[in-house]
Amino acid sequence: MSLFGGIEAGGTKFVCAVGTGPEDLRAEVRFPTTTPEECISQAIAFFREQAQREPLAALGIASFGPVDPNPKSPTFGYVTTTPKPHWAHTDFVGPISQALGVPIGFDTDVNGAALGEYRWGAAQGLDTFVYLTIGTGLGGGAMVNGKLLHGLMHPEMGHMPIPHNWDADPYAGFCPYHGDCWEGLSAGPALEGRWGVRAYNIPPEHPAWELEAHYLALGLVNIICTLSPQRIIMGGGVMDQQHLFPLIHNNVYSMLNGYIQSRQLLENMDSYIVPPGLGNQAGVLGAIALAEAALQP
Amino acid sequence: MSLFGGIEAGGTKFVCAVGTGPEDLRAEVRFPTTTPEECISQAIAFFREQAQREPLAALGIASFGPVDPNPKSPTFGYVTTTPKPHWAHTDFVGPISQALGVPIGFDTDVNGAALGEYRWGAAQGLDTFVYLTIGTGLGGGAMVNGKLLHGLMHPEMGHMPIPHNWDADPYAGFCPYHGDCWEGLSAGPALEGRWGVRAYNIPPEHPAWELEAHYLALGLVNIICTLSPQRIIMGGGVMDQQHLFPLIHNNVYSMLNGYIQSRQLLENMDSYIVPPGLGNQAGVLGAIALAEAALQP
Repeated sequence: MSLFGGIEAGGTKFVCAVGTGPEDLRAEVRFPTTTPEECISQAIAFFREQAQREPLAALGIASFGPVDPNPKSPTFGYVTTTPKPHWAHTDFVGPISQALGVPIGFDTDVNGAALGEYRWGAAQGLDTFVYLTIGTGLGGGAMVNGKLLHGLMHPEMGHMPIPHNWDADPYAGFCPYHGDCWEGLSAGPALEGRWGVRAYNIPPEHPAWELEAHYLALGLVNIICTLSPQRIIMGGGVMDQQHLFPLIHNNVYSMLNGYIQSRQLLENMDSYIVPPGLGNQAGVLGAIALAEAALQP
Repeated sequence: MSLFGGIEAGGTKFVCAVGTGPEDLRAEVRFPTTTPEECISQAIAFFREQAQREPLAALGIASFGPVDPNPKSPTFGYVTTTPKPHWAHTDFVGPISQALGVPIGFDTDVNGAALGEYRWGAAQGLDTFVYLTIGTGLGGGAMVNGKLLHGLMHPEMGHMPIPHNWDADPYAGFCPYHGDCWEGLSAGPALEGRWGVRAYNIPPEHPAWELEAHYLALGLVNIICTLSPQRIIMGGGVMDQQHLFPLIHNNVYSMLNGYIQSRQLLENMDSYIVPPGLGNQAGVLGAIALAEAALQP
């Protein structure tokens, strides 16, 4: 069985690992996301050391974005216009490819996680589904007709406009581009900005969670109406609050109001909107899955 | 070259035609959408007569919905839960298949139109795009990764929640399920309900159109963030008001606010959101394209 390397490149930390799948993650290193030079060197050093024990067949990189995942583009493998300091217009794949000399799969963190869930997690056997992460930001990846969705570039689901309930919620949203878009109203910083408390310190019975579920459900209904996914997987730090799931199920159900006559939506909402099957490993296993896919025609 | 039949089954009229493509539509008949029995008999009679001259290789049906387009489902080929009188839970494909004995392609009207635009119109050469119709209702079809999007069932883009500008617009929306969803605020009946005048009687300089463009743009931005289409094609009676296009372009551009760094969105909006290449024939040619596709493996 081929051995793969994976890089989960997040906004705050890098996770590098080698393995063949969820039952076989052999080594892992984590370090903070600083400059591209530092992070890329540390990743290369880790994989070189690992490859001395057993060669890597391919490497996957699942990165924060926006990125250029189009192999035909001159800036393929770049982090493009991120507001993150030091990282705008960074060639991510190039130096790693040169140093390691193996095929590289490259995509957004959320498309990677979607592929990992398809391969080993909560999306096995499906061909059209969505993976969302709700943490310091809100991002979504998707598989449609058995392939990851890119289209024009890649989805940017966090930036959908949703109805803002100004009467109940005077918080203006934190997105520097759109203010009160989906991310601006419902990612972690919105909870903190609105209530003055970090999300994980807000008790489950606090009204914050009903409002959070309401906003999350609005975006989910948009996704259901547009992409018609067979399942929606929701991970990320905010979703570690497991009590959010039933609130979200109720909100989505009542917003759809029976219009879409699908048994999954009418009777099985709790198996339709679910946490990641791979738990906190969804990210790094997604990167391993991207490596595996890079070997396929 | 094989000869195909196509049925564009709309909420108000049926269009049946035979041909091989846009340059070769040989015969066409139109009749009002009454009961399933009447409409299906009229369609069968037309195609039987046509097939006496030259046999049909396949037939395509592009239908108002919701429909069941899943060939593995026991209710494949049905119009399912439509509020339209007489048509709920109607087997549409079954009796036509029995009468004509040819392969039948069956999908939503908007997925059909998307396939027609891909085959002969404004989406040639793309693999991920959206086709919208804005008329008495608002519906969307999509191709992703070179195949029509079905997923759970099929998209229902008209029923997305969008921000309702209550200050400028006290009109409550006309959707019987969701009130002020995208369709409820921006399809033809919303224009008439809000302004008291049929859409085609509202002059181009009337403020109705700026508000209409604003609402349409909100849904378009949702679609761009979620599906990442390479192009969006907008047809239907409301979009016959060609002066809407530049208003929509401006609204989408300002709502995105430069976040998605794609040349199509930043510089070429007027070739990104476009009218159908097949004009008013997008519907019936979509049905012909579904017939053609039914012959392919």
